Amino acid sequence: MILQYETPEVITKVDGVECAGVRVKGGGLGIVKCEGKAVGVFTKNRFKAAPVIVTEEHLKNGFIKGIIVNSGNANAYTGEEGVKNALKMAEMLAEKLECDRKEVLVSSTGVIGVQLNMDWIESLFREVYPQIGSDEENSWKFAKSITTTDSFTKQWGVRIGDVVVAGVAKGAGMIAPNMATMLAYVFTDAKIDCSFIKEVAEKTFNSITVDGDTSTNDTFILVSTEKKACDEKRVKKAVEHVCSVLAEMIVADGEGATKLMRVFVNGAKSEREAKKVAKAVASSTLVKTALFGCDANWGRIIAAIGYSGIDVDEKLDIAIVGGSWRAEEAFSGCKNEKVFIVKDGKDTGKRSVASEIMKKSDVVEFHIDLKAGKCKACVVGCDLSYEYVRINSEYTT
Amino acid sequence: MILQYETPEVITKVDGVECAGVRVKGGGLGIVKCEGKAVGVFTKNRFKAAPVIVTEEHLKNGFIKGIIVNSGNANAYTGEEGVKNALKMAEMLAEKLECDRKEVLVSSTGVIGVQLNMDWIESLFREVYPQIGSDEENSWKFAKSITTTDSFTKQWGVRIGDVVVAGVAKGAGMIAPNMATMLAYVFTDAKIDCSFIKEVAEKTFNSITVDGDTSTNDTFILVSTEKKACDEKRVKKAVEHVCSVLAEMIVADGEGATKLMRVFVNGAKSEREAKKVAKAVASSTLVKTALFGCDANWGRIIAAIGYSGIDVDEKLDIAIVGGSWRAEEAFSGCKNEKVFIVKDGKDTGKRSVASEIMKKSDVVEFHIDLKAGKCKACVVGCDLSYEYVRINSEYTT
Repeated sequence: MILQYETPEVITKVDGVECAGVRVKGGGLGIVKCEGKAVGVFTKNRFKAAPVIVTEEHLKNGFIKGIIVNSGNANAYTGEEGVKNALKMAEMLAEKLECDRKEVLVSSTGVIGVQLNMDWIESLFREVYPQIGSDEENSWKFAKSITTTDSFTKQWGVRIGDVVVAGVAKGAGMIAPNMATMLAYVFTDAKIDCSFIKEVAEKTFNSITVDGDTSTNDTFILVSTEKKACDEKRVKKAVEHVCSVLAEMIVADGEGATKLMRVFVNGAKSEREAKKVAKAVASSTLVKTALFGCDANWGRIIAAIGYSGIDVDEKLDIAIVGGSWRAEEAFSGCKNEKVFIVKDGKDTGKRSVASEIMKKSDVVEFHIDLKAGKCKACVVGCDLSYEYVRINSEYTT
Repeated sequence: MILQYETPEVITKVDGVECAGVRVKGGGLGIVKCEGKAVGVFTKNRFKAAPVIVTEEHLKNGFIKGIIVNSGNANAYTGEEGVKNALKMAEMLAEKLECDRKEVLVSSTGVIGVQLNMDWIESLFREVYPQIGSDEENSWKFAKSITTTDSFTKQWGVRIGDVVVAGVAKGAGMIAPNMATMLAYVFTDAKIDCSFIKEVAEKTFNSITVDGDTSTNDTFILVSTEKKACDEKRVKKAVEHVCSVLAEMIVADGEGATKLMRVFVNGAKSEREAKKVAKAVASSTLVKTALFGCDANWGRIIAAIGYSGIDVDEKLDIAIVGGSWRAEEAFSGCKNEKVFIVKDGKDTGKRSVASEIMKKSDVVEFHIDLKAGKCKACVVGCDLSYEYVRINSEYTT
């Protein structure tokens, strides 16, 4: 599922952000130059990649001057030598920026278990660094440089008055022996307190599921160059919106995905419970294959709710809404009509009507009302197709 | 993956067990007549099917005289009417056996969300009941009657001296709008304390994974007719063996499965941790598709270990063993040579050798040594193929 979109703003429109990137066969290198406050959220995988270890350490300052990212090799499961190489990457950029290496963040994505070829990194660096600038093209080149098997480049941004919030991301590629690495860098020139990043991550990047696997390299960085005063509440909302759109782009680029699925759970006793239910439904391979087959199979949805581990009553509602992808609907939903397939725990007899809607729609929403409380959550996933199996089993040939 | 096997013993060889069954288009009905002590383990799905609710209640006696099972309709998500119908099924058999309905267990498997057609059940009952007997054929007819989309009938049993332990199972079929229901009935004429059922279930039926979905109807019943004295330890081991074989049969019949995968985790700090790691690896869709593609992709195994949620060191070992299915190896492993793909956390360079072994083998074992303790576990799963996607997405056409 390749999204056709035009972003209103790009990262180089953020005051204080310059960048460059090059993507060659086998990988790429991207650089961001930006003075600002930075925070990050990282993979929970026990085997954190070397750049994640280094970046977490460097973020303790809370202030950065640059970011360097390579694709093609994840520098994961590479031991002490891997950490040394990640530090070398930081040093490379720090030397040019005339700052401490601790003011540079490092990310990698690609093959795991193989040491970085530092000659290759250095030669790319020499090529990329002089290109740093603030043209719109630079932002796309950076976005492209961090991709691996992504089928489209992911960038989204918005303007609120004279303030810009914009970000790039990569994700979904899991072609062997790579891992599905999600990288996201969101920038704003508004002076905001970035400590709400965990909350944002929880609602966006941590509320998507392609195949449930968590990479060794997942990284989400939020940077404020603090150039402008702003209505902080509105800017924070914009940050969440940008992350929502980038997160949905990652899912839409899920391997072999033909349809995006938004699972909205309402009426839960807590947000945690709502998310648990939504995640169980969006992750169920039976729900995912039924979505691919365009069948409003509520039995499979019910079963997933049932094993999600929370205490729910049978008398719930399930409705389906069909739409096509639009950025403003990311994580918030289409406005099209709801078709109830289960009402008060009973089959409404509308399964075939709902299935027809699924056939026609690129985006399918499941709205589940648990009727047990006032809390809600949304998890975005995709279907499971032949193409997913092909990509993930035939990559060696 | 259809297993070719001949079981040494069948359930009608268990002293005190008689049965019958019929399988017609759209479903079937099976009956077991057996006086004995019984215990059960059931689905953890929140939406327990009506027969599960009834059977759990009836098992409080600890003593049963019969079991009645239908396939074709799961009697799940059917509310009070469903419970009434499940009770009616118990009454039907109790009347013939001249016992209380509380001495009869009930199971169902098939479509969910649809009320049972009790006329159909009654007519099948009238046909099946007179056929009850203890011929070997009866055992196969019962085993066949409880199947849904199973591609082969599952029965296994062994003899220890004059004592028999034998069981039947159904599983793996998840064709819509059905759920994957696992049913297993294991009988012995040995006088044993059956309260170890949970422990056995944990090591066998709860240590398999096809697609991670848990049905509303999963049921495992263990019955002792208490006809014979025995070496209790040996008989308990035999019960575990029978359950291991039945559990592996269920996985081998996993939809679209072309290869069985045994994940052995050794050197864990606790059994719980060992199982968590084994389950994460066996459930990873990336590992499952790599298995289908016959690639010894240790990066994906490492990543799954990493996100399993336990604290492990990078310096672990991963070896591959290839074999073909044999009952005596169920959950215990092949004796063929181990090929290490990761040793002390380092690539051994044997990936292509290991991949060749995977190509030639119906059964692929991953042996993971965490080197952190003395505990171990085994989880059995299967690959994820095009056929899985086809079965689960194209069933409506």
